[in-house]
Amino acid sequence: MIVVMQPQAKEEDVKALITRVEEAGCKVHLSVGVGRTVIGVIGDGTIIDARQISRMEGVENVVPISKPYKAASREFHPGDTVFTVGDVAIGGVTIGGNELVMIAGPCSVEGRTHLIELAHACQEAGATILRGGAYKPRTSPYAFQGLQEEGLRYLAEAREATGMPVVTEVLDPALVPLTCQYVDILQIGARNMQNYALLNAVGKSGYPVLLKRSFSGTILEWLMCAEYILSHGNNRVILCERGIRANETETRNTFDLSAIPVIKQLSHLPIVADPSHATGKWEYVGAVARGAVAAGADGLMIEVHPQPDMAWSDGRQSLKPERFAQLVREARLVAQAVGRDVPRPRVRQRVNGQVQM
Amino acid sequence: MIVVMQPQAKEEDVKALITRVEEAGCKVHLSVGVGRTVIGVIGDGTIIDARQISRMEGVENVVPISKPYKAASREFHPGDTVFTVGDVAIGGVTIGGNELVMIAGPCSVEGRTHLIELAHACQEAGATILRGGAYKPRTSPYAFQGLQEEGLRYLAEAREATGMPVVTEVLDPALVPLTCQYVDILQIGARNMQNYALLNAVGKSGYPVLLKRSFSGTILEWLMCAEYILSHGNNRVILCERGIRANETETRNTFDLSAIPVIKQLSHLPIVADPSHATGKWEYVGAVARGAVAAGADGLMIEVHPQPDMAWSDGRQSLKPERFAQLVREARLVAQAVGRDVPRPRVRQRVNGQVQM
Amino acid sequence: MIVVMQPQAKEEDVKALITRVEEAGCKVHLSVGVGRTVIGVIGDGTIIDARQISRMEGVENVVPISKPYKAASREFHPGDTVFTVGDVAIGGVTIGGNELVMIAGPCSVEGRTHLIELAHACQEAGATILRGGAYKPRTSPYAFQGLQEEGLRYLAEAREATGMPVVTEVLDPALVPLTCQYVDILQIGARNMQNYALLNAVGKSGYPVLLKRSFSGTILEWLMCAEYILSHGNNRVILCERGIRANETETRNTFDLSAIPVIKQLSHLPIVADPSHATGKWEYVGAVARGAVAAGADGLMIEVHPQPDMAWSDGRQSLKPERFAQLVREARLVAQAVGRDVPRPRVRQRVNGQVQM
Amino acid sequence: MIVVMQPQAKEEDVKALITRVEEAGCKVHLSVGVGRTVIGVIGDGTIIDARQISRMEGVENVVPISKPYKAASREFHPGDTVFTVGDVAIGGVTIGGNELVMIAGPCSVEGRTHLIELAHACQEAGATILRGGAYKPRTSPYAFQGLQEEGLRYLAEAREATGMPVVTEVLDPALVPLTCQYVDILQIGARNMQNYALLNAVGKSGYPVLLKRSFSGTILEWLMCAEYILSHGNNRVILCERGIRANETETRNTFDLSAIPVIKQLSHLPIVADPSHATGKWEYVGAVARGAVAAGADGLMIEVHPQPDMAWSDGRQSLKPERFAQLVREARLVAQAVGRDVPRPRVRQRVNGQVQM
Repeated sequence: MIVVMQPQAKEEDVKALITRVEEAGCKVHLSVGVGRTVIGVIGDGTIIDARQISRMEGVENVVPISKPYKAASREFHPGDTVFTVGDVAIGGVTIGGNELVMIAGPCSVEGRTHLIELAHACQEAGATILRGGAYKPRTSPYAFQGLQEEGLRYLAEAREATGMPVVTEVLDPALVPLTCQYVDILQIGARNMQNYALLNAVGKSGYPVLLKRSFSGTILEWLMCAEYILSHGNNRVILCERGIRANETETRNTFDLSAIPVIKQLSHLPIVADPSHATGKWEYVGAVARGAVAAGADGLMIEVHPQPDMAWSDGRQSLKPERFAQLVREARLVAQAVGRDVPRPRVRQRVNGQVQM
Repeated sequence: MIVVMQPQAKEEDVKALITRVEEAGCKVHLSVGVGRTVIGVIGDGTIIDARQISRMEGVENVVPISKPYKAASREFHPGDTVFTVGDVAIGGVTIGGNELVMIAGPCSVEGRTHLIELAHACQEAGATILRGGAYKPRTSPYAFQGLQEEGLRYLAEAREATGMPVVTEVLDPALVPLTCQYVDILQIGARNMQNYALLNAVGKSGYPVLLKRSFSGTILEWLMCAEYILSHGNNRVILCERGIRANETETRNTFDLSAIPVIKQLSHLPIVADPSHATGKWEYVGAVARGAVAAGADGLMIEVHPQPDMAWSDGRQSLKPERFAQLVREARLVAQAVGRDVPRPRVRQRVNGQVQM
Repeated sequence: MIVVMQPQAKEEDVKALITRVEEAGCKVHLSVGVGRTVIGVIGDGTIIDARQISRMEGVENVVPISKPYKAASREFHPGDTVFTVGDVAIGGVTIGGNELVMIAGPCSVEGRTHLIELAHACQEAGATILRGGAYKPRTSPYAFQGLQEEGLRYLAEAREATGMPVVTEVLDPALVPLTCQYVDILQIGARNMQNYALLNAVGKSGYPVLLKRSFSGTILEWLMCAEYILSHGNNRVILCERGIRANETETRNTFDLSAIPVIKQLSHLPIVADPSHATGKWEYVGAVARGAVAAGADGLMIEVHPQPDMAWSDGRQSLKPERFAQLVREARLVAQAVGRDVPRPRVRQRVNGQVQM
Repeated sequence: MIVVMQPQAKEEDVKALITRVEEAGCKVHLSVGVGRTVIGVIGDGTIIDARQISRMEGVENVVPISKPYKAASREFHPGDTVFTVGDVAIGGVTIGGNELVMIAGPCSVEGRTHLIELAHACQEAGATILRGGAYKPRTSPYAFQGLQEEGLRYLAEAREATGMPVVTEVLDPALVPLTCQYVDILQIGARNMQNYALLNAVGKSGYPVLLKRSFSGTILEWLMCAEYILSHGNNRVILCERGIRANETETRNTFDLSAIPVIKQLSHLPIVADPSHATGKWEYVGAVARGAVAAGADGLMIEVHPQPDMAWSDGRQSLKPERFAQLVREARLVAQAVGRDVPRPRVRQRVNGQVQM
């Protein structure tokens, strides 16, 4: 259940309520809004009598929640979740607000110079967050598994050089602390959406998490996985629709466009679209990106590579930087048509490694 | 194979080539463009030696086609297919051009006055083509099967009253001639995409056809079904993406956004989107409609009903006319952002049943 | 609702009840069992007050049915449906009883001598019903569409020569009467499961129907399609599981084994398995056939061809007659392990075209 | 590539070949059969010239492998993999041989006495391996997550009491060593099929692994996940088909029967069937179990609970011990019909905790 406190409720009212709930063996999840506190009661809510709670001091009303997710639900947090990642000294990047985020970069980190050059090129084309894989989940145990910690170091250097926050995938709960030393956002890939040990690890880390939908996961299951992260008090979760499995073979996966309005209806969490993995072919990336923006996505995640034919992985779906720049321009026009915006490229000078916006 | 004639090829060259092909037991499919004729050779192309053909008078080059569809392919007809339906005396409606078509109306025709009133309301909101079901494919044999020929008559009256062309579904090859007497476009529903007897019947009719994708049909299978219609020389085919089956249960079907750019790449046929059936819930229709327009759809097909709760079928996914008007306005802004347009409502006066634009 | 009459109910009680129901605008579906009549009330059952009905003379009890199918449900017809097809003078073939039916033959009828030879070979290997396609639903309009009426004639000749009943697919409602002149069972293919015009046509024909499940049809939808046929009073329907579409690519489709016990639980109709289309590869046909028999299938439908590499269609999934003979022997052992049986081959002499068992 | 040595090849020939391969940066995977050694070359095989290898001393021939899995392939290991788990002092249980394994037990370990009683009941009904969940992957973070290490201790006690080997699921790579202290087989659940950190951890442990197929994983992807385990030299992998996601809603998942013959064709690894999770309803478990045995499964994995209505999880799909006993009897008859067998229950006396067979 969700307990909505009166605007004039006192702090002691809130404390009394929390004590009452915890004594019943449940946990609370606090959401302190402007002038009003909302308390999510987590656990077996049937133990607690809603009518008793509703008679407590300072309580405005009690909303029973039939949905199995609570912290991720719109009922619990009616406004959109908006948060900032990256170096706030230079502004950071705000996710979930009126401006869309543009996440771009290579599938795999392939080398120091290669990555830093590409990061600059992505930023000049309009990227605001850098993506890059250091630990790669590969279908074959014999395939390239990523540069691993070396890759993380290059990502941190690219962040230093461009000022862009960095997102990278984590595969192993044991490596979450190490990864947090180098990057700003932890990505959970499609294969690991329901890897609960990993969800608990990133939840506890307190770092922002980008949670991809699994190949055949329903929206309900996806929100339940977000709930795993949120249940640790880590509210900075970004959902990422990257295509699901259906019968079609012309595209790698099937981009589920309606997931965007459905998530916006059911949850307060931001959602970005990954048309690169959804389509698997660069020629379809632009159209799906525009569609996602028109349907309300809070951002895009695009694979970019200077020479797609030479990419160590997923070259077939990667855009060259100049095509990505065109995609950003087109996405901006569509975003403006639906009352939002894509920020203009804010380019840091490449000289002397100094921050100069 | 496809034979591209030289711009200066003579009519007798073309005739000689056709004779040569037909003697080999194959059929030809002619596409006479501006200053250049393209000939599709249909049938077992392996019988004919491509090198012999390429040495014939007036032939520029011979393109072997590995795709199993020919008349539907971009190779055969590089430009977009654009055609006009409805009463050309009052302008008709052009499909496949720069302006998008807005198809709207009730799931089922429910009565004469009801339909005509709704048709006017749809037109005033921005519809350019009227949809309405007279023969309904119902899951249950005991459910309402539609007003049948009575429904067709009302559709014809609504067309008369508004000037809008009309599209309705056909279920039985035997009823195609009757249906052609009343409407402008024949719809093949998702359940009948691979009903070859029906495809042959609408192909032979020469009437424009709106071909919906089946629940689990691939894009290749869909184009092969279009090819059935085109193989009768009926080139006026509109494809309609209406969602496919996947694991998601929050929406009725899963709208396959990438089908739009894929069709645009592989084929010259226009494609419209049906977000009503794709989502099954009115609250998601607008977002999916905007996404489809941004991705390049040539039009939208929307279920509209004055009182969705009272609709005889599919009320859950129907919009009220005022919400449809808003959808059209939003779709126009998105269309303009991608270099296209949605025409302003051109409303016919409702007075005296006379045509007054 | 379903009205169960008392064992001692009089004929006039039944008539009174039918009159009462029909006056309320509903139809009745009669099932006269041993010493007891069951009446299905079809249509909007909410109009009729179940309590009033239950007080009528001769009524034992009234069962409200929440399932959307009635005539196809176990509640309506608790015992298994068992019926005989083919020439009863020479015994016919019973479907749905303790002995399984073995349906075998080529995908396409390829010629008179070819078919008759193959029919004899199938019979000698253990087939009890002959299958063969005369009108073929082909993905491409340019592919071989079957020998059509010529094929039907050959099927009738093969029936004459072997005494085996014959099943063939129908595609067009207009051709149902012609097809009935030549064969014993009408097949509805997967693509046409929800082709309601065709379902109505075969329902009205009164001929036995083999109804395949569609590529992505649910069991509920499948039973609703059976209900279309049954609603015409045609109770001789055989369901055929032939694999559905899923993500797997190693097999052509995914055989849904659990459909067999589910159908047995929900319905009284017999169900056979088609492992040839389900797997698409001959090497997997035997294992799936054995599995289907162990799970309770009432028969098998197998593609057999003397030279699979030379088959006009679907050669990849066809067995040679000798492999089919082995499959029948293995299926018999499994059938016996679950308390049923597969009859020994009963071979008709091939000499002089005379019937000699 | 795979290098097949001559039967008379000397040990030094094998060593020379291994040195040659390792110098080229590849790994070798040795399979020493009766009188013949087969060497799998793992890594980028293109570096090594197959013709050079084929001229080395003792080499019979070199087989290039196009399949992306090697150690899991039939080409590499033509005979079936057969191995024994559990306490060999009292016989152990052989997997992959002529006798099928019967794995049974509760979804979740619910208590010490409860589990030990149930283990005895399962064994008396015919189980040869005990299953039970200690760490449960739950959709909701607020649901019961299992008794965890306490559950592992009870499993070890139940093993002690019955002599049956024990299988339990692992969720976190960090808990693999702990789990190995208590159980005989590590289970990878469907959600974690592509959790590569976990696959590497169980691969390195050297313990037998039961690898479930994921909800939408293809057979190829599944074998690639087995390859992850095998690539660590851990060859004791059991595959488990537990149903995939398709459109059907009457069953929880869709049991892919043809996966059994496909795996038998492509791989040497044993495969068992889990009809409990596949169907999700106890009434369909028996039929699917019989079907799986008839199609060639090497065993069954069944959820058993004394009071399914009271089970902490998955009660809807659990059988009571007496129904499980009937299932085993039926499975034995089917196994015998296909030339295999299910062993009779070998019951250990429950008295005094002493081992008495």
